[in-house]
Amino acid sequence: MEEPTIRDIREAAERIRSFIHRTPVLTCTALNDMCGAELFFKCENLQKVGAFKIRGATNAVFSLTDAEAANGVATHSSGNHAAALALAARLRGIKAYVVMPQNAPEIKRKAVEGYGGEITLCEPTLLAREEGLRAIVARSGAEVVHPYNDYRVIAGQGTAALELCEDIASLDVVIAPVGGGGLLSGTALTVAAVSPATRVIAAEPELADDAWRSLQAGRIIPLGHTETIADGLRTSLGDKTFPIIQKHVSQIVTVSEDEIIDATRKLWERMKLVVEPSGAVPLAAVLSGRLEVRGLRIGLILSGGNVDLDHLPWMR
Amino acid sequence: MEEPTIRDIREAAERIRSFIHRTPVLTCTALNDMCGAELFFKCENLQKVGAFKIRGATNAVFSLTDAEAANGVATHSSGNHAAALALAARLRGIKAYVVMPQNAPEIKRKAVEGYGGEITLCEPTLLAREEGLRAIVARSGAEVVHPYNDYRVIAGQGTAALELCEDIASLDVVIAPVGGGGLLSGTALTVAAVSPATRVIAAEPELADDAWRSLQAGRIIPLGHTETIADGLRTSLGDKTFPIIQKHVSQIVTVSEDEIIDATRKLWERMKLVVEPSGAVPLAAVLSGRLEVRGLRIGLILSGGNVDLDHLPWMR
Repeated sequence: MEEPTIRDIREAAERIRSFIHRTPVLTCTALNDMCGAELFFKCENLQKVGAFKIRGATNAVFSLTDAEAANGVATHSSGNHAAALALAARLRGIKAYVVMPQNAPEIKRKAVEGYGGEITLCEPTLLAREEGLRAIVARSGAEVVHPYNDYRVIAGQGTAALELCEDIASLDVVIAPVGGGGLLSGTALTVAAVSPATRVIAAEPELADDAWRSLQAGRIIPLGHTETIADGLRTSLGDKTFPIIQKHVSQIVTVSEDEIIDATRKLWERMKLVVEPSGAVPLAAVLSGRLEVRGLRIGLILSGGNVDLDHLPWMR
Repeated sequence: MEEPTIRDIREAAERIRSFIHRTPVLTCTALNDMCGAELFFKCENLQKVGAFKIRGATNAVFSLTDAEAANGVATHSSGNHAAALALAARLRGIKAYVVMPQNAPEIKRKAVEGYGGEITLCEPTLLAREEGLRAIVARSGAEVVHPYNDYRVIAGQGTAALELCEDIASLDVVIAPVGGGGLLSGTALTVAAVSPATRVIAAEPELADDAWRSLQAGRIIPLGHTETIADGLRTSLGDKTFPIIQKHVSQIVTVSEDEIIDATRKLWERMKLVVEPSGAVPLAAVLSGRLEVRGLRIGLILSGGNVDLDHLPWMR
């Protein structure tokens, strides 16, 4: 598959429609008043498996021919993609193999197992994860579905912005968080095609500012170890996501840990939405003052809502 | 005004439409699987001021003639109704006087002040609150809007169920929590008119089971002191809400504190919704096993989402 076109993204939307939620777009007068803009929140925290990840995983799994699907799918992930792929595979009736580091949180393992995924534990290094995945693929013949560096996944993630643009006309800006860039690149492709006057801006933690650095440098600068609270964004860009971002994203805004925690809490308190810190990063960018937002109509993608309810971000 | 008809409720819906959110109806496969029913959650926790209360307050305030409205509105309340009335009054450009006990939480006072309401503090007894309200009315000539024992308020609260029945056809059951009975009686009137085959069931904390006792006794039995975690339901029925409930509510299910806390947590964890314990009481009833739900299509009203995020229900 080539870089997705808007036609691919529309086909993805059709393909996954019956398996996912059409999530609501919500507004909040109090948050509008705080920044002087009109904010439209695309609530992917209310999506199945609690994150947009089910869109890309489902599109990838249902894009496979029967022959390709016969041996199942495989990935290495410690996050929401693993659960999403396990659910998508179950929906198609095929196996999902997930390589996970031994230190992955119990709750993430349970989510994958709950959807019938088969977990192989490995040492908590990227090398061990990749070797674990290679071994499974060699043994099973499963099709690898990367969490973000995969055009089928990128096209699937772009369907969230497609729905947002269908529901809300004349947005001046759409802001998405950036980790590996799957959501951001899908969003950028979609918005460039269906609403070319709308700017796409990325929001990123200062403690994981590899996308910002990569855009400055004009090449992918991998992310080193980081403990940002936005744990969904602790990943480097891929060679498929980076060129799309270079071409279609107009700006990257970085935000501090305190700004992320504050934005997360505001979403819980004012909008009554459980959003994970990674999903609050776009609002943090809007509230940071680092972006000219006054008078604008701004779409924000609340990417996910998977948090440990016994350890809230503001209770650390 | 007489007991509201469905026409009054439809008029209320028109009257308040531009001031409130049309809240989404959300579903959750995981919760469906737990009880073997199809659950449809009407998300009034995502409503303005974080609760359905804005519906009744706005209907009452905008039902007033200009002459009636000229001197403002007044109520005594320590809860969501006070904030809702203050916001509704501000929307109409009139004053709102709120009598509140001295021990009301800071956060509730700030909410009322934030909407421009004028607070008078009093001793934390019902007698002191009623006397405080009488004094304000005598001085200002304000129109009293009771939190629930008021037909304009009841008609307004009924609009949540109207939207639910418009969005989801063929519900077998609608479950609402019951405190003073404003939401429940409005729901019951609406459902009886627009979907007569649908049963309306109330859910109530065991520690505040005055509605259950009242229905058994055939007369209003006031609620004594209670510390139920469902703090929105610590009120007795009124002489306007009770007869409607007697006539149109088929059953009341009581639930334990542990069941309420467990249901609250499930709504946060599985649906990513911040719901206050009072709003989780209907789900607690469904999950309790005390109700035959298997195979049914059930609407549940998530009544509100105002909780102290520093002291979560499961952290007490």
